[in-house]
Amino acid sequence: MITADEPTRIDIALGERSYPIYIGAHLLARSTELLGDQVSRDLLIVTNTTVEPLYALSLKEACERSGRRVEVLALPDGEQYKTLATTQTIFDALVAGRFNRDAALVALGGGVVGDIVGFAAACYQRGIDFIQVPTTLLAQVDSSVGGKTGVNHPGGKNLIGAFHQPRAVIADTVTLATLPQREYRAGLAEVVKYGFIYDLSFLEWLEANAAHLCARDANSLVHAIHRSCEIKAEVVAQDERELGLRAILNFGHTFGHAIETAAGYGEWLHGEAVAAGMAAAIDMSRRLGNITQGDAERSLRLMKKLELPTAPPRIGAQRALELMGMDKKVLKGQLRLVLLQRLGAALITADYPREILNQTLAERFG
Amino acid sequence: MITADEPTRIDIALGERSYPIYIGAHLLARSTELLGDQVSRDLLIVTNTTVEPLYALSLKEACERSGRRVEVLALPDGEQYKTLATTQTIFDALVAGRFNRDAALVALGGGVVGDIVGFAAACYQRGIDFIQVPTTLLAQVDSSVGGKTGVNHPGGKNLIGAFHQPRAVIADTVTLATLPQREYRAGLAEVVKYGFIYDLSFLEWLEANAAHLCARDANSLVHAIHRSCEIKAEVVAQDERELGLRAILNFGHTFGHAIETAAGYGEWLHGEAVAAGMAAAIDMSRRLGNITQGDAERSLRLMKKLELPTAPPRIGAQRALELMGMDKKVLKGQLRLVLLQRLGAALITADYPREILNQTLAERFG
Repeated sequence: MITADEPTRIDIALGERSYPIYIGAHLLARSTELLGDQVSRDLLIVTNTTVEPLYALSLKEACERSGRRVEVLALPDGEQYKTLATTQTIFDALVAGRFNRDAALVALGGGVVGDIVGFAAACYQRGIDFIQVPTTLLAQVDSSVGGKTGVNHPGGKNLIGAFHQPRAVIADTVTLATLPQREYRAGLAEVVKYGFIYDLSFLEWLEANAAHLCARDANSLVHAIHRSCEIKAEVVAQDERELGLRAILNFGHTFGHAIETAAGYGEWLHGEAVAAGMAAAIDMSRRLGNITQGDAERSLRLMKKLELPTAPPRIGAQRALELMGMDKKVLKGQLRLVLLQRLGAALITADYPREILNQTLAERFG
Repeated sequence: MITADEPTRIDIALGERSYPIYIGAHLLARSTELLGDQVSRDLLIVTNTTVEPLYALSLKEACERSGRRVEVLALPDGEQYKTLATTQTIFDALVAGRFNRDAALVALGGGVVGDIVGFAAACYQRGIDFIQVPTTLLAQVDSSVGGKTGVNHPGGKNLIGAFHQPRAVIADTVTLATLPQREYRAGLAEVVKYGFIYDLSFLEWLEANAAHLCARDANSLVHAIHRSCEIKAEVVAQDERELGLRAILNFGHTFGHAIETAAGYGEWLHGEAVAAGMAAAIDMSRRLGNITQGDAERSLRLMKKLELPTAPPRIGAQRALELMGMDKKVLKGQLRLVLLQRLGAALITADYPREILNQTLAERFG
């Protein structure tokens, strides 16, 4: 059992794009030591106005101790600002500060900050380094790892983006103490996802430790983050650019994107939409006979123990289908879905009776 | 000797990102045959309002003959529209047309269209295919080949972009017939660049055939385009992401970017600025003793035979230096320059007496 007192390291194996993930308490102050000499001496920390007063100064001072030049830019907080226009403000700050090709961006914040900053790093001067310093549970277990970056378009989430791997991820679990309860729970949705799609024993561990996790017990939290990142690292190392396997990480996301888009960005948190989306995907997996009624009930029971929403808004089956149709996971006109093969294993398929999808949508969204 | 009657093919060797360049007359009508089955059946042709009435319909009809769905989007014409905002209009058209991950963009036009469209392709759904159909000399010999894409920022040219290789380049020499004289000459700047930096015998061929080229003689043109693309292909295959050698292709560009930025985008054509920039780089190479006074005069003589500008605007040495300083080619605070080692060979160096750079700037820009 890993404890909060022992910082731990996981490596994402991607050849010359490999990088470490550090997980532990009080790591912000140790950033310079963790980054070593590999990263540029010119850093622009990009955060949001919520996180800035909490952690920007201590991270800045930690990085400056190694003689680096460090500037800070705070973006407005919220998914509704995950746009090309916000990315432009990062470019403006880089140009105004005369940051060159050898500079690095540091994303300090949640998934929104990480996605925008990673995309800005991918595009500035055709690609500069960036470091992920995730401060939300969702970002620590999911969005900071794997190199998917991007911004939203009114027509769909993450429609504009790039694959651009960070040089390092520093997940300081102490930053989770200030996370609002709703955002914390939304992060647990991605944690339980790894159990559903990849690891039945992790799912069992989550069932046994749900109460501890809800109480933010430090050791349970470190274990949950560590195992989540391990699974993500294994999947990403096998399929960096999502040509196949990696799509299993989108379990619940195709249904979830429809929820987020219908509600307007920011109304449903990403993790909440994924939770309700997973409930729909579990329901469809049961209808297909991949899992039993008992498995489905057990899955929903675990999500409820983790205080996750399982019912999507009643936007109607037809509207849900339309919004899923614009999702990136549409291949050659077929709607490809990530479903459960069994508890602890996912499959990606466009080969299912259309009627089963329609029944699922009618039941959950109708 | 290659002639205009024989379409020719050059391959850019980049592993799984390899692609062919087709050069010849009347190739637009043969697009479907050239693209074969490799490229998506859903195409969005992006062009500008100048090129659209000339060539968009024939390209569209050629592609539709293979049963493809083809839509056309015309952007406003000009370097001043090479912005993130214009890129957004391409994303809007892709979303409105429900183009998915398996769609492809087709860039029909000059360097500006190619750069924007390539960048849009790099970012849409984190990367879709694109085809270059260059209709200017500059785009055919330079910007359509090699995968550099991007848009301008008020702080500098191409500051926002990506490396994203096209799936194919189709250079139809017939489209050059409608090219305004000034743009045609600007393209010759990049042609003569290849002679300066890489191939003395090509330089000699250009000296012997300058009059034919100025008269747009078909066979001379095909030879010049073919040899230019061959040289670019060799350089790019050795250094796709410009970690070293590839920077020689920027000969004249660092000085030239200062000219373009000072004059405001669109006032000096890119090729014109590169020509005046090469004249400055040649002057500096002579001051360093790399080439003789005779070599320098011979070089300027050739540029004048090709009707290229060699004198930059008198923006002042200090202003020129500042504008060169924001250029991407600044490495670790040192201003790295591409200079001639001798006629027909370039070197990349940050190791020169600062005084020589100052003298050059004072002489040319002061």
